[in-house]
Amino acid sequence: MVKLVTVDTEIRVRYKETDRMGIVHHSNYYVWFEVARTEYMRQQGLNYREVEERGILLPLRETYCKYIQGALYDDQLIIHTTMTGFTGARIIMEYEVVRKVDNSLLAKGKTVNAITDSNLKPVNIKKTAPDLYQLFLNCVQGT
Amino acid sequence: MVKLVTVDTEIRVRYKETDRMGIVHHSNYYVWFEVARTEYMRQQGLNYREVEERGILLPLRETYCKYIQGALYDDQLIIHTTMTGFTGARIIMEYEVVRKVDNSLLAKGKTVNAITDSNLKPVNIKKTAPDLYQLFLNCVQGT
Amino acid sequence: MVKLVTVDTEIRVRYKETDRMGIVHHSNYYVWFEVARTEYMRQQGLNYREVEERGILLPLRETYCKYIQGALYDDQLIIHTTMTGFTGARIIMEYEVVRKVDNSLLAKGKTVNAITDSNLKPVNIKKTAPDLYQLFLNCVQGT
Amino acid sequence: MVKLVTVDTEIRVRYKETDRMGIVHHSNYYVWFEVARTEYMRQQGLNYREVEERGILLPLRETYCKYIQGALYDDQLIIHTTMTGFTGARIIMEYEVVRKVDNSLLAKGKTVNAITDSNLKPVNIKKTAPDLYQLFLNCVQGT
Repeated sequence: MVKLVTVDTEIRVRYKETDRMGIVHHSNYYVWFEVARTEYMRQQGLNYREVEERGILLPLRETYCKYIQGALYDDQLIIHTTMTGFTGARIIMEYEVVRKVDNSLLAKGKTVNAITDSNLKPVNIKKTAPDLYQLFLNCVQGT
Repeated sequence: MVKLVTVDTEIRVRYKETDRMGIVHHSNYYVWFEVARTEYMRQQGLNYREVEERGILLPLRETYCKYIQGALYDDQLIIHTTMTGFTGARIIMEYEVVRKVDNSLLAKGKTVNAITDSNLKPVNIKKTAPDLYQLFLNCVQGT
Repeated sequence: MVKLVTVDTEIRVRYKETDRMGIVHHSNYYVWFEVARTEYMRQQGLNYREVEERGILLPLRETYCKYIQGALYDDQLIIHTTMTGFTGARIIMEYEVVRKVDNSLLAKGKTVNAITDSNLKPVNIKKTAPDLYQLFLNCVQGT
Repeated sequence: MVKLVTVDTEIRVRYKETDRMGIVHHSNYYVWFEVARTEYMRQQGLNYREVEERGILLPLRETYCKYIQGALYDDQLIIHTTMTGFTGARIIMEYEVVRKVDNSLLAKGKTVNAITDSNLKPVNIKKTAPDLYQLFLNCVQGT
């Protein structure tokens, strides 16, 4: 039975992230997912800024979020992040946002990143960056 | 054969909406969808600010976007917006983002809004705001 | 007596731009100033995206805003924008944000942009881009 | 000689905070200043969310920032934050943003907050919230 790596990232809700409804504006969850992706990769030994400096970009192809309960200003949140798919051309990640104080689930999300060169054209990293390819492969093979 | 109302909203990409990849950050499409929802409702004779002043809120339950081609700074975009579902408790809307100059499709999205009171509790607008209920119903009955 | 060019840009407040205080978050005025700068330049015959494609960037050096009255969701605003200074190395612009419906003043701002190459190093556009230099000079000489 | 309290807040630059110039968009410094204000107050024993729940708001009256060097994606920053003025009606705070790795100064800022009730009308907290008044007074009296 495969157990995939989950990385936890802590976020504190910023005032700016709220809207006049009194809760966090829904678009910010995608910003947090991005922060969580960076931390997920860092935990796997991968500095995404350095990846970009090698000329490899990971633009988004699809994003999805389901909102269960609104996050409030100054809430401490934990984002559980898992890479659930890797095809060589795409990376699929899933997220759960929970409120730290009571562990209640606020939102669930999913993103699909493409893998491209700096002109946003698809690249075959199995050939051009085999170390990255292997690293992503390891993520989805679990333990 | 039902033909649903589609409302077009024009947006010009702001510098702030780009990121270091050189294209618009993916989270901004959701901000545009929200602008487009406001305009869709205005075209149906509905001022969403006034709806909120009556104590009815439309918090997001789900958001989805598929990105096909990146939008660039200063691009003029058109967002084709359609209400495709209304159940009394939820509003489903779909969006297509096209570049004005060549009509190429940049992104497609979908959102689900709940209908709640000002404490974010579900309300039955068929009873509490029948005019709104009828108006939303008309949107999805098409012509 | 010198009369400087003022360009008016219209903005409608987005839901996302509000915060839990119920008014527009103060940081958004700077985003609007940037939109207004783009429009100011366009009115002077200058496409800022093309300027950047020539390798000339205008990074901010200073920004200031005084907030007089809060803007609300869906408010229509007009941003009166004037270039008040140009030294060859810096561009100074001033802004007034007024509410369209009653012309009341909501905020006043000022920005200072540097003029650099694509590595963010200062450039002397009098030599490298004399057309731009002349155009900016015209802006501050008024009529 | 008065030595005012300075509180340090650590921030890691988010991808979303960059723009197509490759550096952080200037408006984000104001968002960080706000995060830093929240942390400054927390260090003084003040939970700003609770302050708002008591019906006291701190809307911005003026904001200023001078940009010295651009922050980059994934940079770790420290924001040194000091309350430099308190008049009973206004709070003045100053900020220095430094890059953690080499302590180089990236930006300096200043903000002025008003003190109002929940309708954004000025309140005299010396009368209505003497504990808050005393706490802010302590901040600017230094040691």
